[in-house]
Amino acid sequence: MILRMDRLQTELPKPKNPSANDAAAIQELLGGKFGEMSTLMNYTFQSFNFRGRSQLRPFYDLIANIATEEYGHIELVSYAINMLLTGVTKRDPNPVSGPLADAANFRNTYHTLASGQQALPMDSMGNYWNGSFVYSSGNLKADLLHNFFLECGARANKIRAYEMVTDPCARAMVGYLLVRGGVHIVAYAKALQKLTGVDVGKLLPIPDISNQKFPEAKAHEDAGLHLKLYQFSPQDYGTAGKIWNGPHPEDGKECTFEHLPPDYGAPVPDL
Amino acid sequence: MILRMDRLQTELPKPKNPSANDAAAIQELLGGKFGEMSTLMNYTFQSFNFRGRSQLRPFYDLIANIATEEYGHIELVSYAINMLLTGVTKRDPNPVSGPLADAANFRNTYHTLASGQQALPMDSMGNYWNGSFVYSSGNLKADLLHNFFLECGARANKIRAYEMVTDPCARAMVGYLLVRGGVHIVAYAKALQKLTGVDVGKLLPIPDISNQKFPEAKAHEDAGLHLKLYQFSPQDYGTAGKIWNGPHPEDGKECTFEHLPPDYGAPVPDL
Amino acid sequence: MILRMDRLQTELPKPKNPSANDAAAIQELLGGKFGEMSTLMNYTFQSFNFRGRSQLRPFYDLIANIATEEYGHIELVSYAINMLLTGVTKRDPNPVSGPLADAANFRNTYHTLASGQQALPMDSMGNYWNGSFVYSSGNLKADLLHNFFLECGARANKIRAYEMVTDPCARAMVGYLLVRGGVHIVAYAKALQKLTGVDVGKLLPIPDISNQKFPEAKAHEDAGLHLKLYQFSPQDYGTAGKIWNGPHPEDGKECTFEHLPPDYGAPVPDL
Amino acid sequence: MILRMDRLQTELPKPKNPSANDAAAIQELLGGKFGEMSTLMNYTFQSFNFRGRSQLRPFYDLIANIATEEYGHIELVSYAINMLLTGVTKRDPNPVSGPLADAANFRNTYHTLASGQQALPMDSMGNYWNGSFVYSSGNLKADLLHNFFLECGARANKIRAYEMVTDPCARAMVGYLLVRGGVHIVAYAKALQKLTGVDVGKLLPIPDISNQKFPEAKAHEDAGLHLKLYQFSPQDYGTAGKIWNGPHPEDGKECTFEHLPPDYGAPVPDL
Amino acid sequence: MILRMDRLQTELPKPKNPSANDAAAIQELLGGKFGEMSTLMNYTFQSFNFRGRSQLRPFYDLIANIATEEYGHIELVSYAINMLLTGVTKRDPNPVSGPLADAANFRNTYHTLASGQQALPMDSMGNYWNGSFVYSSGNLKADLLHNFFLECGARANKIRAYEMVTDPCARAMVGYLLVRGGVHIVAYAKALQKLTGVDVGKLLPIPDISNQKFPEAKAHEDAGLHLKLYQFSPQDYGTAGKIWNGPHPEDGKECTFEHLPPDYGAPVPDL
Amino acid sequence: MILRMDRLQTELPKPKNPSANDAAAIQELLGGKFGEMSTLMNYTFQSFNFRGRSQLRPFYDLIANIATEEYGHIELVSYAINMLLTGVTKRDPNPVSGPLADAANFRNTYHTLASGQQALPMDSMGNYWNGSFVYSSGNLKADLLHNFFLECGARANKIRAYEMVTDPCARAMVGYLLVRGGVHIVAYAKALQKLTGVDVGKLLPIPDISNQKFPEAKAHEDAGLHLKLYQFSPQDYGTAGKIWNGPHPEDGKECTFEHLPPDYGAPVPDL
Repeated sequence: MILRMDRLQTELPKPKNPSANDAAAIQELLGGKFGEMSTLMNYTFQSFNFRGRSQLRPFYDLIANIATEEYGHIELVSYAINMLLTGVTKRDPNPVSGPLADAANFRNTYHTLASGQQALPMDSMGNYWNGSFVYSSGNLKADLLHNFFLECGARANKIRAYEMVTDPCARAMVGYLLVRGGVHIVAYAKALQKLTGVDVGKLLPIPDISNQKFPEAKAHEDAGLHLKLYQFSPQDYGTAGKIWNGPHPEDGKECTFEHLPPDYGAPVPDL
Repeated sequence: MILRMDRLQTELPKPKNPSANDAAAIQELLGGKFGEMSTLMNYTFQSFNFRGRSQLRPFYDLIANIATEEYGHIELVSYAINMLLTGVTKRDPNPVSGPLADAANFRNTYHTLASGQQALPMDSMGNYWNGSFVYSSGNLKADLLHNFFLECGARANKIRAYEMVTDPCARAMVGYLLVRGGVHIVAYAKALQKLTGVDVGKLLPIPDISNQKFPEAKAHEDAGLHLKLYQFSPQDYGTAGKIWNGPHPEDGKECTFEHLPPDYGAPVPDL
Repeated sequence: MILRMDRLQTELPKPKNPSANDAAAIQELLGGKFGEMSTLMNYTFQSFNFRGRSQLRPFYDLIANIATEEYGHIELVSYAINMLLTGVTKRDPNPVSGPLADAANFRNTYHTLASGQQALPMDSMGNYWNGSFVYSSGNLKADLLHNFFLECGARANKIRAYEMVTDPCARAMVGYLLVRGGVHIVAYAKALQKLTGVDVGKLLPIPDISNQKFPEAKAHEDAGLHLKLYQFSPQDYGTAGKIWNGPHPEDGKECTFEHLPPDYGAPVPDL
Repeated sequence: MILRMDRLQTELPKPKNPSANDAAAIQELLGGKFGEMSTLMNYTFQSFNFRGRSQLRPFYDLIANIATEEYGHIELVSYAINMLLTGVTKRDPNPVSGPLADAANFRNTYHTLASGQQALPMDSMGNYWNGSFVYSSGNLKADLLHNFFLECGARANKIRAYEMVTDPCARAMVGYLLVRGGVHIVAYAKALQKLTGVDVGKLLPIPDISNQKFPEAKAHEDAGLHLKLYQFSPQDYGTAGKIWNGPHPEDGKECTFEHLPPDYGAPVPDL
Repeated sequence: MILRMDRLQTELPKPKNPSANDAAAIQELLGGKFGEMSTLMNYTFQSFNFRGRSQLRPFYDLIANIATEEYGHIELVSYAINMLLTGVTKRDPNPVSGPLADAANFRNTYHTLASGQQALPMDSMGNYWNGSFVYSSGNLKADLLHNFFLECGARANKIRAYEMVTDPCARAMVGYLLVRGGVHIVAYAKALQKLTGVDVGKLLPIPDISNQKFPEAKAHEDAGLHLKLYQFSPQDYGTAGKIWNGPHPEDGKECTFEHLPPDYGAPVPDL
Repeated sequence: MILRMDRLQTELPKPKNPSANDAAAIQELLGGKFGEMSTLMNYTFQSFNFRGRSQLRPFYDLIANIATEEYGHIELVSYAINMLLTGVTKRDPNPVSGPLADAANFRNTYHTLASGQQALPMDSMGNYWNGSFVYSSGNLKADLLHNFFLECGARANKIRAYEMVTDPCARAMVGYLLVRGGVHIVAYAKALQKLTGVDVGKLLPIPDISNQKFPEAKAHEDAGLHLKLYQFSPQDYGTAGKIWNGPHPEDGKECTFEHLPPDYGAPVPDL
């Protein structure tokens, strides 16, 4: 069961250059194999399916908290897409003028034909997200390894999306997700280490470029956002701090588990 | 953004007859075109994409609250599937004995090969849920009509699943969902009526069989569960009561909007 | 069993501006989820599968006649696509000159590679129509509600296609289909009303814009084309007039069931 | 444009042994890659897309007539599936008894969950027919070669379906289609020969087993049904006899083009 | 079992005009229904599945040798795609400059997001190759007819790709494949003739344009490359010469079976 | 370019209990997301796409050799499937007896309808392998991490297939692949360690069960097969030994790179 709040995890500035093709590219971060729908649904189903949770409580709680945070990520990407699409065609109540004529040349025509220039759970080629992207093997070590790899693949996509789309709205979103996705990479590395003793975190960063190179991410890291894992629950899932602790593998600072959800956030834009 | 609680919306009894083929059939309610993944994601994306929410606040709040409740439904169906699968093969740490030999004849081999006899976002034929099932048209009337139809189709599937699977675990889940899905059907009917004046609720029930015929649903309705829509949020989405009010189209009792999430529920089973 | 006539339901003028991307957009009306392949196949399978047709004859006949008319619609859209594609690349029997070089930048490369710049049963993103778009539930009320919704969704797509593509060939086709699709919306509304007493037609138009705003549609409506349902059969399916009668919900004029197929039409173009 | 008649092309006896798995197998002949949806849609789109029809009229007419006949084939297979599914579960208006309990073990659960035990455009594994099965290349020789191969593949499937399902209803349908599909194989062979001079018909039969081995097919061939191609149109498509003439490649009898559709047929069953 | 050599079958010049959209178009030859993945996998699985190989050895050997050669073809097309993609975006280690900004307008965004501007097994619309393109029927005549048709369809695609993309790198690749694919067409024609006596080769060329019209293909044919089938094995598959012999159907020159793999080839480029 | 040998990598005994459902389950190892088609195609495309191979030669050579070996694995699984399917239906040249009647109840009807009871590139649910399973990111560390994870997932599937199917033919195949797949897991772990210094091999085994528990695998390991990586090339790809060396992470024995392909193997069965 969940409760929902009408807030975004970070504020998104109004786009300077609305662009349908930029919005189409950003869809990869929503509905691609390595998009936020995939991270959300992988961890959600792994938490539903978790076996042996009394003995392995901190792992269960870790996965559940991250799953919960991911919901806010599909929300954030969806709003960015909506905002990038606002104004890409002219408005005219008279259909005869062909107000959507430009849209025939947009890469993604579903934005215009299957929705009202809005976000849908599809990727940058307009292929819909599907449940085969969910891995839930019944083997904790395999699931954690999968999640670690998934987050690295997701990070690669975010970096490329950042390099493809320069609009500040998109970059505010990507920069924020680079930091929070980075927390998840480290969290799964720490979980694997707790389970096996192997210091998987030393493989990072994958790809080999620091979040510090992305000004929008750097600002969040300077504020310590990369060090905090949140308990996204009024009272459950509180033991994840048994895994999320100790030094961060990239800057050595101390990781802390926050028993409250983040209070930063921003009101949702009225589209 | 969401918060999550480690609770199920209703209690699921331990299955009397675990059955892999029953679990496979129940998957339709999770990942089928008319399954809970579809209702969850339709309303979630419609709420992210909602245009003109200051003028149309009650509609936005209604959709957002129902979307939030649906998360609890994918959870409930997933637990039922997990429970139905528990014990369908023998356990033997020695692979030579062929402990999974029975599974070669199960209809759904993904339960065994792609997961550890767990729920996945797929339907009764093992086809994965996909995002093309999401309809978000940018036109409120069309979206509400879609949602009304979607819930009717979902109800038909629940009824058939009830008739296919007799185990009490599955039926406790289906009975509960018939009632809560029934609330959603009526909610979209009331929303359409508010928008257009047409009393769409008079079309109900679709299919033509009352929830009263299903003992597990009847028990919930006798307790008035079909009359309540919940505010699934600490403080947002509170105006849905402007739509959810007046008599219930099937029994004429007064519909009430509850400003607190339900406190019934049950602890999640330790699988 | 069917008989076929080498005629189009309406005349299509030669395009003024052949355009591969316009043709690609129009494909949504052919092979999209809400395209003519979907309406054709939904009603065709519902008619094959119809249970209880002796008691429910007028409903059976209504669906069968509309199914039959839809065949002419996939034909009409296909011809429009063919015509829009004629001349989009230069012709040169010598391949060395690269006569298809422009096609590498067309949105839909299947038009060039998988066909000879011709229509295929795919949508505006080049995804092929598939049978999962067919809904045939075995419950008449649910099927009619589905069909009513399907036609509204199809209407929304036609309106957007009209606004995307300004060429007179495409607009002659879309204008005609807006009128005939409008007849089908009203027909399913009347069928639902006959079955349940609810005046579903009062929901119309969905979306909230009249066909009168589209000059090519208005011309047909001024001639009364929106008031006629045809018996598309030499001698069968003749009782649909028990449903298709009474006032049209938008202009109040009398609806009539014509016991002959339309004799307007036009010769098929020699491509 | 088409007209439709409420007749089946051949009479189907009531099944002796209704069987959901037999019905599921027969679906391959409806919605499989080599099923009747594929032959129908291949020839239909090739006829819509036909270039140069004034010079190549007999080829155009041949394809159009066969396309038209194929509609009757999807109808015939659909009725057979419906009939095979009638009675496979018990009927009980009280859902508590689990009237559909057997269906959890049927291979194809869509028959029960997505339809009311009815035919859908899917194949024997429940995968839906899709438009990628349509080949329309813009090159007549390539299209005819494709069609010749498609019909051979379809014949192989019919033979195997015959060997899988022994019920007289299914076999009446398959026997009839073996003969009519056989006409189409020969028709495309003759068309290729007319175009190129190569006697492709000498490759037949593919697979290497005569229709004479199938009693239900033999009866039709003894009546000469394999020698007739029909003009499925009140007045169009009348020149196909310029291709369909001369000796049949398997028994040397004279092929004739009938300027009337077949008058055998049978009333549609009331399901 | 196979051995691999680090060589390309023909040399590919460095592109003069790298172009992401040209690379996207060329993907059809790699992962399209008629692309090299399809020819490779069809013949590979047909050889694995071959029944009765002691009696039908030359057919088995023919299919196995061609399958083996096709591996070199997916390699060749993949290198051409990689080369066409080299340099299509600017390089800048600083992500802030948006080095991939142009890629948001490329037709195929998977090249940038799902790979590092590299070849993937997908077609010109970014749809992935899949195993349903493999036909292995268990009937030799049907398989050979399929292969003959498949190669003709593949030839049509190569011709169109040649006409779409004028860069010398792409054309060197296509020209070479036109010749080797031409050998495969003739090989399957000869195999069908050996099995049935029908001179299928007289249907050629399909489409009706000679390889001589393509300068890059003509050069290879002038060197006799269209006359040689190779034994791609140290010592197995040596009897294919019982089928590959006699005159070539297009120029009448003698076909020869070479008991050594080709020694032309070229080093693989260092990308 | 490749050369092919008519040999299997290990001998497969004739099945004791041919079983269509066992064959269907084994398909997961061929065409599933974690099947041999996936390992083959991942490494093949990664080798085609490899950037910077002069500096990173040993990594390139490692991937290329493993890719080459995987071809032998799709062959081995395909033969096992063919053998398990031999004799599952009765043989009768007279179709009237319904020789394939049992096949209507087999889980996978494509084996009978789409092939002649043969292997196809599909998974245990009859879904076809597709190219979206290929990951080739352009980042070596990410690719190696992917490959390590992929092989672990593949190992889990092999173990479950072993536990589902007890026939000696299947188990000879699975036992062999457990050992050779185990080599690939370790190879990618060593490659990651070479690149990053992290001893990823200490995570093994994943899942937590030793190959020693599987008698057919143990026999190969007792012969040292798990210690050898082969150069599958007459003269190329010879530097992989710079990575494949040092102790095996599970038993500490020395890993050796063999400059000759394996000479064990077995003749292919004549099906």
